[in-house]
Order: sequence, then structure tokens, then C-alpha cells
Amino acid sequence: MKKKNKKVNAGILIIGNEILSGRTQDKNITFLANWLNSRCGISVLEVRVIPDLQGVIMKNVLEFSRKFNYVFTTGGIGPTHDDITAQSISRAFKVKYEYHSEAFKILENYYGKLNFNDGRKKMAKMPRGSKLIYNPSSAAPGFIFKNILSLPGVPSILNSMIENCKRYLIKGSKVHSKTLNIYTVESNISKQLGVIQKKYKNFVDIGSYPFFRLGKIGVSIVMRSTSKLKLRSVNRDLTKLVKLKKIKVLKI
Amino acid sequence: MKKKNKKVNAGILIIGNEILSGRTQDKNITFLANWLNSRCGISVLEVRVIPDLQGVIMKNVLEFSRKFNYVFTTGGIGPTHDDITAQSISRAFKVKYEYHSEAFKILENYYGKLNFNDGRKKMAKMPRGSKLIYNPSSAAPGFIFKNILSLPGVPSILNSMIENCKRYLIKGSKVHSKTLNIYTVESNISKQLGVIQKKYKNFVDIGSYPFFRLGKIGVSIVMRSTSKLKLRSVNRDLTKLVKLKKIKVLKI
Repeated sequence: MKKKNKKVNAGILIIGNEILSGRTQDKNITFLANWLNSRCGISVLEVRVIPDLQGVIMKNVLEFSRKFNYVFTTGGIGPTHDDITAQSISRAFKVKYEYHSEAFKILENYYGKLNFNDGRKKMAKMPRGSKLIYNPSSAAPGFIFKNILSLPGVPSILNSMIENCKRYLIKGSKVHSKTLNIYTVESNISKQLGVIQKKYKNFVDIGSYPFFRLGKIGVSIVMRSTSKLKLRSVNRDLTKLVKLKKIKVLKI
Repeated sequence: MKKKNKKVNAGILIIGNEILSGRTQDKNITFLANWLNSRCGISVLEVRVIPDLQGVIMKNVLEFSRKFNYVFTTGGIGPTHDDITAQSISRAFKVKYEYHSEAFKILENYYGKLNFNDGRKKMAKMPRGSKLIYNPSSAAPGFIFKNILSLPGVPSILNSMIENCKRYLIKGSKVHSKTLNIYTVESNISKQLGVIQKKYKNFVDIGSYPFFRLGKIGVSIVMRSTSKLKLRSVNRDLTKLVKLKKIKVLKI
């Protein structure tokens, strides 16, 4: 983490046909968004799930790299033919796609010279100028090129690498949140909620999410703000509303 | 379902700050992608997760509506201030955002005249010209406007409505799939897998996905094609490769 900055944002590109086909349930969006928000004060503004197609990957990394402070890609950095993330980033930015000497050494050491075949060597190839994101669980490193951080798609490996991304990121202001869980339906409070949101328009984001719990219907009202003071104030307003409407609050 | 057509595709827009903040684990991508693929022969080519912001929603529905045969949106059609999907679609296509008379009746009937407040009435407002997607679980209907199908974000409600989308969709050719689960690491077979993929380039998509199972490392090789014949043929080639390499096949 280098220096403090107010609003820092990121976009996430999930690269993989297996998510688009419905075969695999994505877990990286939630994990990355949570980590970026809570640990780095970085807001995720957009996520795209795109197929393993070079043209599509190129177009999207270029667009996201311009649009956001950081771009995270997941997937497509393994040894097989459908792993084309590093190659696509290189082509998008017109730089050489070549062996990273340190990555090469790490992998050669991990597999042993005799077993270091072409597929494994491929994992040491990156856009020229990349820096490594070390992988404590299965050796093959991710990389950062410009403002793009490329991580693997397998959630357990990605999770093991995430702390190694931190040194490359500038921290934003932390967003605090408060949740009020109440036993009512959204449409019972929607009008007043709208009024309260208007009042705190530029300071607090209020979201409203229905839930079902032990056969009862409820709503989670989530308040998010960089200001703890404003958060307490909006929470007071909401608590008043809930009391006025004689709505039961759920303690969890 | 109306008539047969070869390749039919769709894009999905997940509208909701709660996914981008990491608070909520998305379940709709997998469900929709699976249903579209297996029940309708429709391939999902792109998914975007975007915030509850009118300008962003407008831009994305316009782009997706041009780009894909169908667009599915999830989220933002409830009664609260952050539910702005219908309004944003109306503005994007410059049509009136107004009460749909049948939706109004359904909701009035469901809540009773006395309890039919403004928040609830809001759920009957749609872009002019919309047709309803009935909701058997909580009354408030979704809608189809042009090629855009708007569904709620709560997975259980979305799931209950999905069959009611079918009448509006043209079916594509069904994509069949076969999976070979083997006990090896990707980098042991990546080269040969690439050769086989090249051979079937225009007919079969081969994906390779590492897994961990009872402490062992394996790879799922997923073959997808509209031709069952080609699928059997690629499966034969892969089975040969696996035998040659003396790799254990996992039966699940």
C-alpha cells in the first residue's frame, strides 16, 4: 500500500467459458469485491464475465484499463490451450509476450528440470514489463501489467495469492457499512426509505434487500458510507421510522 | 417457443450494488446460464454486473439489446428507491414509463385496495409496450420489452418465474456436453489437448478445469458441441490420450 487517496475503484473481468455455460458457480466476484472493499477501500464498479476468446479479452482489458484505477482478471493463466489471458493482454497493449525470467525459475524449480514441459513453461510467459504476484499454493505466479492484475480462476489458489496483490495497490478511503434487519416487506417502507435516501444523497448509499428467514419475510437495509458520523445519523433516522411503523428489528 | 434457429445467444445484466460490494453472493448467473443452455439452446455470451445507476443501466441495456438476441436483466424491479430498472429501460429507449394495466390489477388484487400503497403501485410501472412475465410466488410480474427480459434479483422468485419466459424465446440448437474427469494435472496433458482442440476447432469447444477431490488433484475436461457425433469422436481421441498417458479416469 503506498499512499492515501480518496476514491479508488476497480473493475473485474472473469474470463472463462465455464461460468458463461453455467457449469461452474463463480466465487471470485464476491471474494474479490469483499477483499477490495474491506481491506483496501477500493470500490468495484463493474464486473464482466467474458469467454476465452482473444478478441473479446483484448477489447475488454483495454476498455477496463482506461476506465478504472485497477483491473482484476481471473482465469486463463494456466497451461492449457484455453488459457490465453497473458497472450491477449500482450497483444492488446502491443508488447512482447515472453518468458519472465523469475517466473521461469520459480516454475523450473517447482517442477524440476526433467518435468518442466511446454505447458508448464507457458505459465512463465507474460506481457513484457510484468511484475509477479507470488503464488504460495501452486507456484505459478500471477502478474501485474500496467494497472491490470491477473490472477488464476481456481478460487482456492486465487485466495491464497490475494495478499500478494496489496503492495501494488493504492488504498482508498474505507467504506463503512451498517445493516438493519427488520421483519416487514419492502413495499411497507419504500416511500419513507426514498425520502431518507434523498436526504443523505451524497453521503450514504442505502440499499434494500428482501430476505426469507425461518418462514418469515424481512428486509435488510444496508447503509454504506465513508463517514461514520453520517452512517450513525442515517441509522438513527431509520430506527425512528421502524419504531413509528411498529416493525420488529431482528438482532443477528 | 416459436421456431427453430441455429445459433441463438443472450447477454445477462446483473443490476445491483449488493453484488458489487461483495455483500451478496450472486446465484442468478449460474441458474440463468444453465437454464438458457439446457432448456432453450441459448448461449450466454457475456454477463455484466452493474450498479443501480440510471445512466449505467441505460447505456448497458442499449448496448446489449443491439449485441445479443436476448438480454436478461435481474434486479431493480421492486418497490424501493434503488429499484430503477424499468424506469432506466424506458428512458434508454425513449418510451413512456407508465402503469401496465394488467400488472396494476394483479398487484391491486394481491395486496387489496386498502394496502395498495405507492411503493407497491410502482411495481406495475413499465416501459410502454411491455408484456408481462408472470410471477407465481410473489405476484409482482417481470416484463419483456423489445428483446429485454427483466426479472427480479431474489433468486427464489426469479427461479419461480423462469418457465414463464419460454413463450417469448426462440429456441436455438441444443449444445450437448461430455465431461472426462481424470486424475492428473493440467500441465501433463496441455500440449496434446491443444492438438485435439485444433483438430475439432469449428465443431467442439474443449475446456480444461482443475479440481481437488479427497486430497487428490484432477482435471475436468469438458467438451461442448451441437453435434453428438463430433462429441463422441473427440471423446474417443481424449480417451486414447488418457490411456496412452496411463492416467486414471474418475467415474462420477
